[in-house]
Order: sequence, then structure tokens, then C-alpha cells
Amino acid sequence: MNAPADPHFAARIRESYARQKAMALIGARLTLVAPGRVEIELPFRDDLTQQKGFVHGGILGMIADTACGYAAFSLMPAGCSLVTVEYKINILSPARGSLVARGEVVKPGRTLTIARAEVYADDGSHVATMLQTLMALPGRPDTPE
Amino acid sequence: MNAPADPHFAARIRESYARQKAMALIGARLTLVAPGRVEIELPFRDDLTQQKGFVHGGILGMIADTACGYAAFSLMPAGCSLVTVEYKINILSPARGSLVARGEVVKPGRTLTIARAEVYADDGSHVATMLQTLMALPGRPDTPE
Amino acid sequence: MNAPADPHFAARIRESYARQKAMALIGARLTLVAPGRVEIELPFRDDLTQQKGFVHGGILGMIADTACGYAAFSLMPAGCSLVTVEYKINILSPARGSLVARGEVVKPGRTLTIARAEVYADDGSHVATMLQTLMALPGRPDTPE
Amino acid sequence: MNAPADPHFAARIRESYARQKAMALIGARLTLVAPGRVEIELPFRDDLTQQKGFVHGGILGMIADTACGYAAFSLMPAGCSLVTVEYKINILSPARGSLVARGEVVKPGRTLTIARAEVYADDGSHVATMLQTLMALPGRPDTPE
Repeated sequence: MNAPADPHFAARIRESYARQKAMALIGARLTLVAPGRVEIELPFRDDLTQQKGFVHGGILGMIADTACGYAAFSLMPAGCSLVTVEYKINILSPARGSLVARGEVVKPGRTLTIARAEVYADDGSHVATMLQTLMALPGRPDTPE
Repeated sequence: MNAPADPHFAARIRESYARQKAMALIGARLTLVAPGRVEIELPFRDDLTQQKGFVHGGILGMIADTACGYAAFSLMPAGCSLVTVEYKINILSPARGSLVARGEVVKPGRTLTIARAEVYADDGSHVATMLQTLMALPGRPDTPE
Repeated sequence: MNAPADPHFAARIRESYARQKAMALIGARLTLVAPGRVEIELPFRDDLTQQKGFVHGGILGMIADTACGYAAFSLMPAGCSLVTVEYKINILSPARGSLVARGEVVKPGRTLTIARAEVYADDGSHVATMLQTLMALPGRPDTPE
Repeated sequence: MNAPADPHFAARIRESYARQKAMALIGARLTLVAPGRVEIELPFRDDLTQQKGFVHGGILGMIADTACGYAAFSLMPAGCSLVTVEYKINILSPARGSLVARGEVVKPGRTLTIARAEVYADDGSHVATMLQTLMALPGRPDTPE
């Protein structure tokens, strides 16, 4: 349904992801790149937790945000960049164990793209759901300016 | 306006914050605790950035989420814990430099509390705004179960 | 997957809906009630529009809000009521023509239920998507107090 | 702080508002127009209520959405139009009596504007808070196309 504008979208996303130092900091891995769909896995680590020992809600936001962003980016032409306008996340259950965030495009657009992500734990529980708005910046590269 | 139910709320919050390993990981510091208001500072670090060199949007979410949560927690009685139900964040400008997240309670409640946070950069720019819903868990301690 | 706690949930929802004077005002009709799923249809009317002649964004919110709420209510035991805590809606395309809002439960819960709704126009376009949080009030009837 | 780009913004907004048939339907009135700030009042009417006799949550969304939209529109140049991208609303207390929605711009922008609204009841209670994203459509008039 969603045809990528750039046939090299997967390589472009992998290069971009490799520059995300914050993803390296938390140990998140890009495990699937498809047109309009991206998955990010996060192995459990004790230093990602909040005061009760669950994965921090903001960390859930980080991987869901990134999965949505690259799902949207997969449908963008080469040579542009994308910024997160806003997102909303509902935390559905306390996150224990390793996690996967599955992002997908709800509605692609030339200027704005709407994406969603679902976060699941390795015991199958549905941990979080996110709805996100992104904006394309045509002619602005996806690299430090 | 907002009277804390527990006179020892500040000590309780500082102890809880000290157990947040995810906050230590990103180097965030709890710098103000008042009834219904909490501030968290985040010194800039290169390993907190996304692919364009700005602070990752999910990291903004982490400090804003935590500032809202403890703002709400400051008005809670001792012996309960609080979970984030959901939040929405608008990213207003690319985040460079060190940041401060200022959380405050919009509407306290016995079961649900609504809080907001504003994130500012050290150049004075308004980086993000968050609106959050939290739920009290009476009789459930704020420590690993 | 979602088993209703009250076998008479459909009759209970139809009675409750009939008391929603705001739904009568805009001409919205309850067209499907199933466990965890509700549909509301809104025939186009000129007096539902905003300044450009499209259906008002707040009207989209009204039918999506109500579809989410009754989807959640369908799984609740008799004798309680439900309040909307918050919702977020993305408007995906200008709404012309008649609309349907399809609400479904994402995660049921004793206190909080998370639901979503999709709004479609009669030309098949995806008009809006909503994510909503609802809270049960046990022992509080769903009628004027 | 927010200087209007069009000195005739107030007349432009009043004309636009007068075309909002959905606002007429619910009896909402535009009572204040200032640079970056708009107020809309809604007298209580029985036909605006939900099943428990409170003002319908979607009606709260309608007036808050419109107050945010015109707050943003007040800072826009003449000859463009504005669409709602998304909004999130927290309902803070059941709405009884007449209401006022106060919209204000959080961050103006050439393409995107972020606004917020607070809804109060005539007994002083804080009924709802909204955070909204709007997008300018340059060269697209604010009238039916």
C-alpha cells in the first residue's frame, strides 16, 4: 500500500539509525525495516529502570518514538529530513523484560505523516501504544547541520 | 494552593529519584522539589543525541515524564505509589545544550492527577511541553515489589 | 477475546445512548454494539460544518469519543459508570460527507480502559484516529445523579 | 510578545467564526479576540449533555478546539487558512453550567503553531485542558473552496 519514494530507503535508515547515539546508550537495536514499518528491540538492562524496577516510561517513549519516526522516514524521498512534532503514549502495563517497538505509518503525507507504534514485552504483554505526528523538512539533510 | 499530604514528601521524592537508574544513565539531576512542583536538569551530553546531533525527543520525554510524575507524587500520602497512565509531548524546537524540565500539577486527585511540564534549553528556548495523566496505587509501595 | 461482564451490555448501552442529548443534536446514530466494539454513524448535515464547509473537527471528536466510550462500557459490569479521562485525536483529512466512527478497546481494565477509534468518510477516506483513556466509577450509576 | 501579521486579524476571525455553523448549532459565542488569545463562551443547554446530564466531553473539545484554532489564526497573515492537525484534551471535572474556553498560542510558527486552551465552568471549576497542533496552508483561503 505504501510505496517508498526512495528505493534505497532501508540503507538510508540504517545509516541514520547508526548516528543515533541515544539509541546506542540504551542498547536499542533496529531489527526490521520495511516500507512504512520499522521494529526496534530493546534488551532488558537494569540501568533502564525506574524506582520500582520497571523499564522507565520515558525509555518506552524513546523506542516507540524512534520506531514511528523511521517508519515515516521509509516513505520519504532521499535528501530530506523528518522531525517529531508530537507524540502521545499510553502505558498499558508495567514493562519487565526485553521489549520490541513496532512502528507503522497510519497516513503518509508530503508535509505531515501520522504514525503509530505498539510496544510488546517478551512475555507477550502489550506494554504501550503511541500515536505520533512527524513533519518533513524538504531539502534539509538528515545529518548534523 | 496544593498542600502536601505528607510533610516528608521532599525526602520521599529524593529517595525515590535515587532509585531511578534510567535517570542516572542519562545524567539527569533532581534540582527542585516543592509542593506540586519539581525540576529536573539535564546537562548536555553527546551520547543523548539523535541522528542530527540534537537531544533525542525520547530523552525530552524522559525528563518531562519524570518531572510531571514527581510533581504529582509530592502531593500524595506516604505509602502509595504512582504510575504514568499516558502523556503527550509537543516538541517545539530542536534541543541543543543543557535542559531543564519543570513539572507542575494541573489538577490533583485521589485516584488520577493531571500534570504538565515545560522543557527549556539554556539559551532560553522553549523546547517542549507535556501534558500527563498519572494514577495513584494506594497501599502499593514505591519500591520494587 | 474481550468477554463482556454483563450479558445485557447491548441493551444497557442503547439505553444510555438514548439519553445522550448531544448525540441527538448532531444526528449521530448508534449502529453497532459488540463486545469491545461500537460504531456510530453521522449523516452529513450543513449545520455540522466549520468555516470552510468541512465537518467541524470537534464534531469528529464527539463521535469518536462516544464510540470509544461505549466500546469500553460494553465490557463493564452493570451498575457502574464510566468517565472520559482524556483523548487525543489526529485529523487525517478534511471530512466531507457522512461519517462512521469505529471504537474498540485496546486494553480493558478494572479501573482504566484504553480505547481507540477510527473515523471514515463514505468515500472511504480515513478522516481521523483517536486514542482515549476512560475510568470506571464502581457503584456510580450511568444516569443523572 | 505575539505580534499579529495582519492588523485586521480581529475582523478576519469574526467573519470566519460567523461561518462556523457547528458553533451556531451549539450556541457558542466568540467573546474575546486578542493577538494570540481567543475566548469562546458556551451557555448551558440541556441538549448539549451526555447520558449523565453533564456537558458532553466532545462539546468541550469543540469549544477548546475552536478557541485554540482562532488563537493561532490571529497571528497568521491574511489570505491563508489553518487546519487542526491534532489535539489532546484532559477532562478534569464533570462540566455543569455555562463554560468558557480560553485559547492561547504556546509557540507560533510559519508552518506549525502549538496552542493550548483551558475550559472553566461558571462556578470557577477547571473543566478541561487542551494541547493542540495546527498547520498553516499558505495561499489557501479560509472560505469554502
